Amino acid sequence: MLWRDGRLHEGTTAPFDLADRGLLLGDGVFDTAMALRGKVVAEEAHLARLTGAASALGFRFDEAEARTAMRAVAAGYDRAAIRTTVTRGSGPRGLCPPAEPRPVLWASAAPLRSSVVFADLSLGWSAIRRNETSPAARHKTLGYLDAVLAAEAAAREGHDEAIFLNMAGRVACAGTGTLFAVFGRAIVTPPLSEGVLAGIVRARLLALAPGLGLVPAERPVAPEDLAGAEAVFLTNSLRLIAPVRRIGGRDYASAGHPAVRALRTALSREIAEACGVGPEG
Amino acid sequence: MLWRDGRLHEGTTAPFDLADRGLLLGDGVFDTAMALRGKVVAEEAHLARLTGAASALGFRFDEAEARTAMRAVAAGYDRAAIRTTVTRGSGPRGLCPPAEPRPVLWASAAPLRSSVVFADLSLGWSAIRRNETSPAARHKTLGYLDAVLAAEAAAREGHDEAIFLNMAGRVACAGTGTLFAVFGRAIVTPPLSEGVLAGIVRARLLALAPGLGLVPAERPVAPEDLAGAEAVFLTNSLRLIAPVRRIGGRDYASAGHPAVRALRTALSREIAEACGVGPEG
Repeated sequence: MLWRDGRLHEGTTAPFDLADRGLLLGDGVFDTAMALRGKVVAEEAHLARLTGAASALGFRFDEAEARTAMRAVAAGYDRAAIRTTVTRGSGPRGLCPPAEPRPVLWASAAPLRSSVVFADLSLGWSAIRRNETSPAARHKTLGYLDAVLAAEAAAREGHDEAIFLNMAGRVACAGTGTLFAVFGRAIVTPPLSEGVLAGIVRARLLALAPGLGLVPAERPVAPEDLAGAEAVFLTNSLRLIAPVRRIGGRDYASAGHPAVRALRTALSREIAEACGVGPEG
Repeated sequence: MLWRDGRLHEGTTAPFDLADRGLLLGDGVFDTAMALRGKVVAEEAHLARLTGAASALGFRFDEAEARTAMRAVAAGYDRAAIRTTVTRGSGPRGLCPPAEPRPVLWASAAPLRSSVVFADLSLGWSAIRRNETSPAARHKTLGYLDAVLAAEAAAREGHDEAIFLNMAGRVACAGTGTLFAVFGRAIVTPPLSEGVLAGIVRARLLALAPGLGLVPAERPVAPEDLAGAEAVFLTNSLRLIAPVRRIGGRDYASAGHPAVRALRTALSREIAEACGVGPEG
């Protein structure tokens, strides 16, 4: 299922300009969202982030078109993973963007498996560092090769996902999510300046925490800090909160930690109220 | 002009799977080459590098098909810039590559302006660091957004191109080429481990240097070393050797330096012998 040029199409193959800068240079942005019963979870936040990412790259697109696209592909599923992609469009040869970009936008959806939501994960340290000096580290841009290669390396060592240090040697994030470490009542996550994507679930948890008696904090996390955490969890828009059961050779009892359970319950309730159905399926 | 699926097409728009991993994740590689009178300059080296880059990402493609594609698009021009792109093809949702990738390959060509070849350049320091821990820094992969953003920032300061330091604070390369610094008879370029692409022209110059009485060296270059160089030049497959006239606020008399002139003459002669016409046009 694909939305493109104002309507839904079967399959994913469509006429496309192979001179598109998104394809040739990774010059574009994307968003991944959950949809339940046709409702996009945190729709406004996802649209705002996508717009902000394009803006960081120096182009604009029609946000109303993105909203239409997301809703159109969501409508076909009871539970969906939606991907919305916007490239800067085609341009002349070379790096220099066209003076008046004509962005290309499409969205696709796939069934979302319930088993992924809130499922726990094992993370393997990546040898690749997260480059916090690059805007690409803070925005969801098309260049995800480091995450692909790191995930493969982690899988070869029996892990589900990779975890990255940044150039300064501090904890940045996982390949497909941001990270939180729990210390008593404190839930700590690295600030965006550490090379971290502005996660939608990340922001929601920071906002929900005080109401649950938890103390949210954005501050740098050294690997040795992480080693001393009572629990660690990853957040993204499809897994929501993924308790981390292992990082490298170290085990964590994250799933049962009261802070993780409280956040899960609060987030689930919020989503159920907005969509009329909870994310657990 | 586009070569795809075994034949030439007018224009650049073609049916394309919008679930292609090259488009969605930057999961692919490319090559840029010069062609003169239908002959691809250093064809074998370009094919070998493209194959090596795909191999580093963990997939293979049909090298004979790439050769056919490059030659087919080159045939339409007296002087051409050729781009050959190979993605890992489509796959299921998520980062994990398919077990049996079906790579997608195409090539395109555009007229090569003579004015670009051997033209001098002004370089501006980028605030983005080159990430030498990432395989993407050493291979020509599709994620070129850092180079795009850095080139734009450099242009805003009146430069032609950006120059990158790596994570260690040493000189890596420019956005679209490798760098050499000249100290007397020594021509010095950072090793690939510094986050540098295995440039075809870079390799040729290292090979040609001893025959010209020059001493080639691959070793790390600190910014303060660069400041003391007699000349600096950028190499890539379209500009060949671009004498650098300025880096940040510092001027260099690179174009007239005997080492730069000797390398230019030798490279020109080699290309003219292979193609029947020189690169200057």
